[in-house]
Amino acid sequence: MDDSTGVRKRNVDPEDEQEEADLVLTDSSLPRNDVAESPSPPKDEAPEFMKEALKDLTPRWRNWWVRGWFSLLMIGFFGVLIYFGTFAFMLVVILCQVKCFHEIITIGHQVYKSYDLPWFRTLSWYFLFCTNYFLYGETLAEHFAASIQKEERLMFLARYHRLISYMTYLLGFMLFVLSLVKKRYRLQFFMFGWTHVTLLIIVTQSHLLMQNMMEGLVWLILPVSMVICNDIMAYMCGFFFGKTPLIKLSPKKTWEGFIGGAFFTIIFGWFFALFLCQFPSLICPSKISSNFTVDVNCDPMFIFKPKEYNVPLFIRVLLKLIGFDRSTISIYPLQFHSLSLSIFSSSIAPFGGFFASGFKRAFKIKDFGDTIPGHGGLMDRFDCQYLMATFVNVYLSTFITVPSPKKLLPLIVAMSPDDQLQLFHQLKDYLDGQGLL
Amino acid sequence: MDDSTGVRKRNVDPEDEQEEADLVLTDSSLPRNDVAESPSPPKDEAPEFMKEALKDLTPRWRNWWVRGWFSLLMIGFFGVLIYFGTFAFMLVVILCQVKCFHEIITIGHQVYKSYDLPWFRTLSWYFLFCTNYFLYGETLAEHFAASIQKEERLMFLARYHRLISYMTYLLGFMLFVLSLVKKRYRLQFFMFGWTHVTLLIIVTQSHLLMQNMMEGLVWLILPVSMVICNDIMAYMCGFFFGKTPLIKLSPKKTWEGFIGGAFFTIIFGWFFALFLCQFPSLICPSKISSNFTVDVNCDPMFIFKPKEYNVPLFIRVLLKLIGFDRSTISIYPLQFHSLSLSIFSSSIAPFGGFFASGFKRAFKIKDFGDTIPGHGGLMDRFDCQYLMATFVNVYLSTFITVPSPKKLLPLIVAMSPDDQLQLFHQLKDYLDGQGLL
Repeated sequence: MDDSTGVRKRNVDPEDEQEEADLVLTDSSLPRNDVAESPSPPKDEAPEFMKEALKDLTPRWRNWWVRGWFSLLMIGFFGVLIYFGTFAFMLVVILCQVKCFHEIITIGHQVYKSYDLPWFRTLSWYFLFCTNYFLYGETLAEHFAASIQKEERLMFLARYHRLISYMTYLLGFMLFVLSLVKKRYRLQFFMFGWTHVTLLIIVTQSHLLMQNMMEGLVWLILPVSMVICNDIMAYMCGFFFGKTPLIKLSPKKTWEGFIGGAFFTIIFGWFFALFLCQFPSLICPSKISSNFTVDVNCDPMFIFKPKEYNVPLFIRVLLKLIGFDRSTISIYPLQFHSLSLSIFSSSIAPFGGFFASGFKRAFKIKDFGDTIPGHGGLMDRFDCQYLMATFVNVYLSTFITVPSPKKLLPLIVAMSPDDQLQLFHQLKDYLDGQGLL
Repeated sequence: MDDSTGVRKRNVDPEDEQEEADLVLTDSSLPRNDVAESPSPPKDEAPEFMKEALKDLTPRWRNWWVRGWFSLLMIGFFGVLIYFGTFAFMLVVILCQVKCFHEIITIGHQVYKSYDLPWFRTLSWYFLFCTNYFLYGETLAEHFAASIQKEERLMFLARYHRLISYMTYLLGFMLFVLSLVKKRYRLQFFMFGWTHVTLLIIVTQSHLLMQNMMEGLVWLILPVSMVICNDIMAYMCGFFFGKTPLIKLSPKKTWEGFIGGAFFTIIFGWFFALFLCQFPSLICPSKISSNFTVDVNCDPMFIFKPKEYNVPLFIRVLLKLIGFDRSTISIYPLQFHSLSLSIFSSSIAPFGGFFASGFKRAFKIKDFGDTIPGHGGLMDRFDCQYLMATFVNVYLSTFITVPSPKKLLPLIVAMSPDDQLQLFHQLKDYLDGQGLL
């Protein structure tokens, strides 16, 4: 097979095909000193208008300011999103997912100089599309279920969704097999694996984030804020008190930062959960059927309603000392759940960041990209968020959402009338048997 | 960080850490001529007792006999499994999955000489365990649902299943991050990706195969036999009529073999489906609740019952010419479904084999292992089976299994009595509204 795309031209003996691939694998395209082993001077990433204002500062402080301002900008943007609600968040989650995917795929292509692999960039994006089509279809189908019945065209898509998704994916799979060229096999399989691991990490986890959001925006806002809070407070505590190195992978992280971050995140989570419970637009689930709007008149789940708890005796004694005397205290059950989330976000979620650090070191890059001035790529900010999103999803499905009449009825309505009647009579018999009717 | 496990001892400068990893990536541990580019003489894989009997044959024919006998042996074993039923199949599917996983992971370790990576082999097996625990738990939980209610201990496992699985997985993830050692980062991430892609290919697809089986053994036996039939008939047709090369990846495959295989597989599928419909033990779904036995007195789905179809006029005229005159013909609807399956198994499933061929070429290996004399590794026989299993799963969920009272009732029973009553009244109102009650 002719292959004129080799990086370096030379006479190759067929038995030698391996070498070329190994050559590509060996040769890192990134300069050696780009690794943050001994901290290299930060790049001057400030946008033009900032450069002027910050021109008198040393590069180190300039970077500090740029990073600070862009942190505030992102938090502000997050606030604006909350104002616009579910649909805006959906768009942003999708855009972030595409950008993170792009960042990681680009690293693979750069490190392995695989830009010239036949079809490959097209196939990567195609697989991204397929995975999204499959996952969102599955979720939407579930939420639509009943309402979709009316639209004949959509019904077709919902009915055959898995088959269509699988066939679409298989087309990409077959194109991959057909695009295999001698001398590049190993590199092509390598990039195939790279794409699929990226899909697994980015796409499936963004999808879980999206599912959380459908249960109520609070399930997105609370954990995302906790991770942000933990990042900032760990940085601050490390900055002021940091002495004991935490992990060799990230030499700048310290135990003081880790523990301080956890402390402030737990406190923040407790009060932020209380605050969020005040907004029906955040605690009611989204209704896909009506353009992803939230029915703010929903009857909130009990975890969003205050409940009186007895104050344990020894705490009551302590409170008396400082002048308070109350035998009960009103707490939103969500606040207890926020404890699980904040403990996770400050103890296990940071491993997402360590994983990303290790990955960056492995491929000799400082950041995943240069999307956000002072911060690096989008993926640099999302590394822990994805791990957190999966945890929240698992947590929700375990402790919060249980099969409810609201979710089962659409499934029943989708059955044939005969089956509906059969189920009705079976249920009636069962409830009679239990003495409930 | 001290790392005394390096393949070659030398003084390394910290900036040079990359080189060692690249060294490992470059150096293929397998001899060059192990690639089947120009067919190398087949290895003498015959077991001792066969060696004696076949000693007068040339190596080529000896391999042919060994391969033939072991094919028959495997088909015989498959027959024995059918006799023993679902539970035996489950065990074999799990064993095959573990063996295939082992074969692929071993290739990764051999090619990249990564045996000495700290923790890695342990972690690979741990991830295999986690994935299986998660997937089987999800399926079992679904099937158990109602019956599990009685056992308090099992109830705990079912209730917190996702959380337990996720935490178990996260433990492995954290151990991976903690096991990262300088100089080996890239190789470690590489093996992490390798393990996860293998899990995606082997474990998830075996799990889908298992799900198919639960719907009735026919959904395992029919597609597996089709792939076997296609393999054999494509080989035979290629052997006798093969002239036109099919795909550069597998120089021995021909268009004649591909088309001949498809022709015989479609015919085989049509009659084998008819044959399988005669056995209640194959067409009834398995009941996990009673040790995976099949209730042979189940009321089979309509697709397993013969139905009279009108013979189209022009076929009737053709039949008349050869002495038949029938206006209707009795066909099992499963036979029509068998057409979709056999067309898939002979047109798209072979791409699983091409993918595996490309993979073997990429890593300069002839077979995935030497588990089955004459055939190579188990993975060499399962490459197309996995793709087929996924298709059958998608096909079943799209066309065959719909939400049924049988599946919804356990979900309802799992709810609180209040919710059960609420659902009952909602369903009653709905059915009233539809005029069905």
